[in-house]
Amino acid sequence: MSQFTFTIDAECSESWARAGTIQTPHGTIQTPIFMPVGTQATVKSVSPEELREVGAQIILSNTYHLMLRPGSELIDSFGGLHSFMRWDGPILTDSGGFQVWSLGHLRKLSEEGVLFKSHLDGSPQFLTPESVMRIEAELGSDIILPLDICAPFPCTPKEAREAMERTHRWEERALVAKERYRPEQTLFGIVQGAFEPELRQESARVIGSMPFPGLSIGGLSVGEPKTKMWEMLRATTPALPREKPRHLLGVGSPEDLVECVGLGMDMFDCVLPTRVARHGGLFTRDGRVNIKSARFKRATGPIEEGCDCHTCRNYSAAYVHHLIRAEEQLYYRLGTIHNLRFMLRLAADLRASILDGSYPVFREAFLARYQPASETVREQQREKWKAARERQS
Amino acid sequence: MSQFTFTIDAECSESWARAGTIQTPHGTIQTPIFMPVGTQATVKSVSPEELREVGAQIILSNTYHLMLRPGSELIDSFGGLHSFMRWDGPILTDSGGFQVWSLGHLRKLSEEGVLFKSHLDGSPQFLTPESVMRIEAELGSDIILPLDICAPFPCTPKEAREAMERTHRWEERALVAKERYRPEQTLFGIVQGAFEPELRQESARVIGSMPFPGLSIGGLSVGEPKTKMWEMLRATTPALPREKPRHLLGVGSPEDLVECVGLGMDMFDCVLPTRVARHGGLFTRDGRVNIKSARFKRATGPIEEGCDCHTCRNYSAAYVHHLIRAEEQLYYRLGTIHNLRFMLRLAADLRASILDGSYPVFREAFLARYQPASETVREQQREKWKAARERQS
Repeated sequence: MSQFTFTIDAECSESWARAGTIQTPHGTIQTPIFMPVGTQATVKSVSPEELREVGAQIILSNTYHLMLRPGSELIDSFGGLHSFMRWDGPILTDSGGFQVWSLGHLRKLSEEGVLFKSHLDGSPQFLTPESVMRIEAELGSDIILPLDICAPFPCTPKEAREAMERTHRWEERALVAKERYRPEQTLFGIVQGAFEPELRQESARVIGSMPFPGLSIGGLSVGEPKTKMWEMLRATTPALPREKPRHLLGVGSPEDLVECVGLGMDMFDCVLPTRVARHGGLFTRDGRVNIKSARFKRATGPIEEGCDCHTCRNYSAAYVHHLIRAEEQLYYRLGTIHNLRFMLRLAADLRASILDGSYPVFREAFLARYQPASETVREQQREKWKAARERQS
Repeated sequence: MSQFTFTIDAECSESWARAGTIQTPHGTIQTPIFMPVGTQATVKSVSPEELREVGAQIILSNTYHLMLRPGSELIDSFGGLHSFMRWDGPILTDSGGFQVWSLGHLRKLSEEGVLFKSHLDGSPQFLTPESVMRIEAELGSDIILPLDICAPFPCTPKEAREAMERTHRWEERALVAKERYRPEQTLFGIVQGAFEPELRQESARVIGSMPFPGLSIGGLSVGEPKTKMWEMLRATTPALPREKPRHLLGVGSPEDLVECVGLGMDMFDCVLPTRVARHGGLFTRDGRVNIKSARFKRATGPIEEGCDCHTCRNYSAAYVHHLIRAEEQLYYRLGTIHNLRFMLRLAADLRASILDGSYPVFREAFLARYQPASETVREQQREKWKAARERQS
């Protein structure tokens, strides 16, 4: 019954990069792909039409947020998330696991599932691998993820193993539970293993051999240095089956996309491009610029010369600068459109480079020019993550 | 040199309602018309394309805000407000006078002009009838207004007369000063007179006989009861020249539009439709509804059955309800689009009823069905106005 297929169109001879095509009930996805995040059944500040225009082929939405508000049962009664939010392309929903650890007030983790308090109203919520399958069936997304446990960074090898092994048992239960629901939905497996290369390899082998048509790599980009993330991917990818699409959960920045494609990843999602846009951080080929900066006050050209996004084709950087200085809502839309188009054009460029055999050259040229956000900024993000973790304990 | 013309297409035989056509350098306006307000060179949360789609034919922008940020000279260097904000239709700019009284910290009013402190950074600003003509020339709007003095409600007859007479002298100075600038711009006169019928008549005669191609009625909708506003219009309109378009400044609500068209008004502007939308107040033929209300949680239909706005044609009321409950930015856009379309459809319906001779019937039917916002809400608005006035003294 599933209409899900994955075809590899080309592979890079000097890296693990591949270009592929995914078929889903709501359309085709060409990989590598970046998935804009629509946490609460909307990608913040943009419309479905604008998502199409920036080149979005699939979006990600958050089970945790939607189950709390407006509720998965309500979304089901509207014919599912696609019709509720009026996005007729493919949708991937995560399992809620990550948000339970990072946003919810975790009360009790047991073999059965996880008890936590809603961040909205403090109400008690209990999630199990089985209930998550029911909730995601109600949401009606094309690709669904099983409940998992995201170990913190840092954590002990013992904690890492326990979280991984319980995640594996939960994923087996998810596979069984899913049989009760919609056959047109595709359940991806999630690989965990924290920051232990041996655990990453073990998880890749265990989850890779279960009957999941695709795999998500979880537990990365949770505050660790980038070199650590790359090290984990280098341990993971060789142990993954070649024929299944690989989704790197919660990653990332433009430079992450370019790097991690070479480490064998096909699908990416992250709030970073939309979130930093709302704070004035806009991507260019040279790195992130702050549109609030006085240097844009009289800039008659676009945010970036040659950018094909709606914002750059129609508005001066000075006008965009004026809008954010005046805290006008139109800014958030125009900034978000720019960054999403940047990410989706980058994904398309990566794909084209893989197809014509020039990915290693593309990667080198991109990284030589693109100045990543400073370590200070990343450190702040890390602190935020730690603080969120501590609130739970 | 001016391309400004006004033609009366039809007049109601039972009221002072008229339907007309205004030509401007940036296009044609069919009256009666509602002008969305784009205070800071953007109509909050909507794009120029969306303004076209709701049926906007002309927008209003605020000289006071734009002179402070980003500055009229900067806008001039971008070829004027039309190209800066990418709205190629007609634009009317007010004179800044109203905002000086309501937002700025008034320091000194003299025959020469008005000294005030910017609400943004406290910097001293001095406006004169002459400098306002220069600033509006730099903005490049199609219709410009002269600096005026908006007397508070209530005020003594003596205060009312002094404010009116000084406004008249300032308008003569504005006419002279305007000669130095853009001949393609059209300067409207402003009728004042506070809440004294005799002063309103006098102002209408004095300003109506000066060489202004159009007239704005100022100083109303500043916290007075609606019956008081109607009384003033009944005193004003018969003293106005028939052949000039009449703009009622800062008005209003749907019911105001319907009433005041019958009192001879052709053009309207107000932040109310966009502002109340942002707070959840959405217009229907039965009155304003609060989309936050729990009764919309499962509403599968549109906000209003039969509404032709983009929001109602594409989204359920439940989804719009979800967006505002989740404080998602897309809400502000969808709500604003709905209310603006309501106002512009209402203006078009009023015009059609005048053209086919059914305006009195239309008015009666509309007002019989439409439940206006409660007096409590209006009282709160009045208090807000008074508080703003008091902060200045």
